[in-house]
Amino acid sequence: MKAEIIAVGAELLTPDFRDTNSLPLTAGLNELGIAVSFKTIVGDDEADLARVLRTAIGRSDLVLCMGGLGPTEDDRTRETLARVLKRKLVFRAAIRACIRERFRRRGLPMSASNLKQCYVIDGAEVLDNPNGTAPGQWLETKRSRIALLPGPPREILPMFENDVLPRLAGLGRGLSVRRIIRLTGLGESAMETRLKSVYAEVPSGVTVTTLASPGDLAIHLTYTGGGPRASAETRLDELEASIGRALRPWIYSRRGEGLEEVVGALLRSRDLTIACAESCTGGLIGHRLTDIPGSSDYFLESAVVYGNRAKIRRLGVPAALIDRHGAVSAPVARAMALGIRRTSGADLGLAVTGVAGPGGGTARKPVGLVYLALARARGTVVERHLFFGGRAQVKFQSSQKALDIVRKTLIARTGKAL
Amino acid sequence: MKAEIIAVGAELLTPDFRDTNSLPLTAGLNELGIAVSFKTIVGDDEADLARVLRTAIGRSDLVLCMGGLGPTEDDRTRETLARVLKRKLVFRAAIRACIRERFRRRGLPMSASNLKQCYVIDGAEVLDNPNGTAPGQWLETKRSRIALLPGPPREILPMFENDVLPRLAGLGRGLSVRRIIRLTGLGESAMETRLKSVYAEVPSGVTVTTLASPGDLAIHLTYTGGGPRASAETRLDELEASIGRALRPWIYSRRGEGLEEVVGALLRSRDLTIACAESCTGGLIGHRLTDIPGSSDYFLESAVVYGNRAKIRRLGVPAALIDRHGAVSAPVARAMALGIRRTSGADLGLAVTGVAGPGGGTARKPVGLVYLALARARGTVVERHLFFGGRAQVKFQSSQKALDIVRKTLIARTGKAL
Repeated sequence: MKAEIIAVGAELLTPDFRDTNSLPLTAGLNELGIAVSFKTIVGDDEADLARVLRTAIGRSDLVLCMGGLGPTEDDRTRETLARVLKRKLVFRAAIRACIRERFRRRGLPMSASNLKQCYVIDGAEVLDNPNGTAPGQWLETKRSRIALLPGPPREILPMFENDVLPRLAGLGRGLSVRRIIRLTGLGESAMETRLKSVYAEVPSGVTVTTLASPGDLAIHLTYTGGGPRASAETRLDELEASIGRALRPWIYSRRGEGLEEVVGALLRSRDLTIACAESCTGGLIGHRLTDIPGSSDYFLESAVVYGNRAKIRRLGVPAALIDRHGAVSAPVARAMALGIRRTSGADLGLAVTGVAGPGGGTARKPVGLVYLALARARGTVVERHLFFGGRAQVKFQSSQKALDIVRKTLIARTGKAL
Repeated sequence: MKAEIIAVGAELLTPDFRDTNSLPLTAGLNELGIAVSFKTIVGDDEADLARVLRTAIGRSDLVLCMGGLGPTEDDRTRETLARVLKRKLVFRAAIRACIRERFRRRGLPMSASNLKQCYVIDGAEVLDNPNGTAPGQWLETKRSRIALLPGPPREILPMFENDVLPRLAGLGRGLSVRRIIRLTGLGESAMETRLKSVYAEVPSGVTVTTLASPGDLAIHLTYTGGGPRASAETRLDELEASIGRALRPWIYSRRGEGLEEVVGALLRSRDLTIACAESCTGGLIGHRLTDIPGSSDYFLESAVVYGNRAKIRRLGVPAALIDRHGAVSAPVARAMALGIRRTSGADLGLAVTGVAGPGGGTARKPVGLVYLALARARGTVVERHLFFGGRAQVKFQSSQKALDIVRKTLIARTGKAL
């Protein structure tokens, strides 16, 4: 069962727009155990559209084609598909009645341009559109099942749910179960090397996909195949366990949650509070922690002490320490962490100071050099890191590593024994 | 000249990921007057990928293929294209030396899995990748020009700019000139209504596209056609002027810059400093301001005073004021702005307090209620807003409105007369 999604629209080939409809459609198909093999985006050139439709019908068992059913000149999906299939377009008075009624309710006459929407490809079933004038169409050919669907999300999504998915029941391979494992602190190739043995034992029906960005890695496990669900879950459990054996120290999440959510849940379960002193991250750590609803239970504050004066006045970092070691140094990171912990009254004080770039780097303190410190009752840890990438990447990786230090500290110690 | 973009990656066929690289690539091609006719997304199944490559080479003069050049098992673009073109893969020691050097700089040995990245399709030129291990490749066949490019944005974008675009010069049809106008503080339909008269006078060859998200609107103007460039610029100038007449109060940028960049440039040119007191935005305003290189010249600090205790201790907000009016109130916003200005010594004190949701709302203080205050030498302004959307949208809109208050204050007053 090969499935393909086609998005039709000139705007989708500009630098400004991306197709969004295909994501919920993919989710719906996956639920039935149908994977999407191709997505194609094409404009309103008829020859191009015909080519894409012909290719799709030649290679896929299910083709969902979105867009180009509107009333304007450049909406030509209906006509083009009819030509590709060598079928006639048939006028349906019932559709005209529907569109007229729609206009009447708004106190308007039906526009002549909507007449073309009353034509249906010979042999197609009409899919009602309660949210717009363009009805959908469902066709079956010897090889393929084809759905023509309108482009606007509020029209296509209910139609897909109500009229397309029920027609697909039983066509899929049963079941699709996904799991997302997330990691930090490891490079992509180091992860791959460690996964070698895991790849050798991937159970049948399961695919493993890895995704990497600076400071964050993800491993997606997807089971597609027959039921029952419990046995699919068991396969994924086993695979997850062997990934755990290969990569445990770097895994922060096994259900796709972000690091800020994981750290928040740990703080909550330990009944601990945190406060941050951020220099080069500029507020990003506070921003990420407060993206989680209810974070006020454990996040007290963040002092974004960008300038030296703020470091001194807000956190009591000794001016002499900054003079001697520079603001980007282990002693200053330590003093910031101790200062924010003391002045906020939080259980944990987390501090970051570094050179985010692109300017401000020197031979001894290059762009990407970052010191992180975590102060707790039992003492303070300080780490030195050198991150690569532009300003945004250095900021993100700093925030990621800082949160990961908190995570590791919390899972290593039980109770309040910090 | 038919151009086509292919994105390779199993994750791009899941409900979780969308291709993003194709947008800047499209913008770059458009600059040369090359339109994109097709975009295709395919996973890591070799037969599917081979089919997509064969189709593309059969119908397009230029094929940009992104992704699948990494070191992992499922990165197979290089091998698949070689097979489709019936060409050999050739080992290049120079690439190995590059990758080794990259690892050496990080104090690591080159991983064995990277060896496959040293192979190049016979006849291809190698495109250097200073930002990753996967070099790109440039090939010409009788019909097509083909670029194989790495998937990660930080790798593909510089490579496209430096090594692909120069190879395309002269292939396009004339000229493409774009301009991006950005607005905030206005709804999408209000903008469309005000643009009605503008739409009636769009000069030939120019397209106008609008993009809306909560708190941010953009109008993209694109001229495509013959030269000279100066006359295209004149057409866009005139259109921009009439858009300015319709929408001036809401326009913050006419060259696509973000609001944090606009505010930063205004602060710098006035030689003014700013400090923030953030409650519901959690650090987002500081994060945005510090995304701009050199922001330490005007951004002093941000006090992310999430809890009441922090508001009282860091900023001297009277506890009685919070008791009487609640933390989300005009008097507390004002006290926060005055407090951060006084304690930081900044020229401007910017404060935000609100209910980001989803919890914490009441009938009198619903989710989305936000108070903003800006303290300056001549007095303090306080604004009350009600934003719609989820937690992330409320945070973003709050930061956007707060920065816009600063922008409006700075453009309304000259010199230090604040």
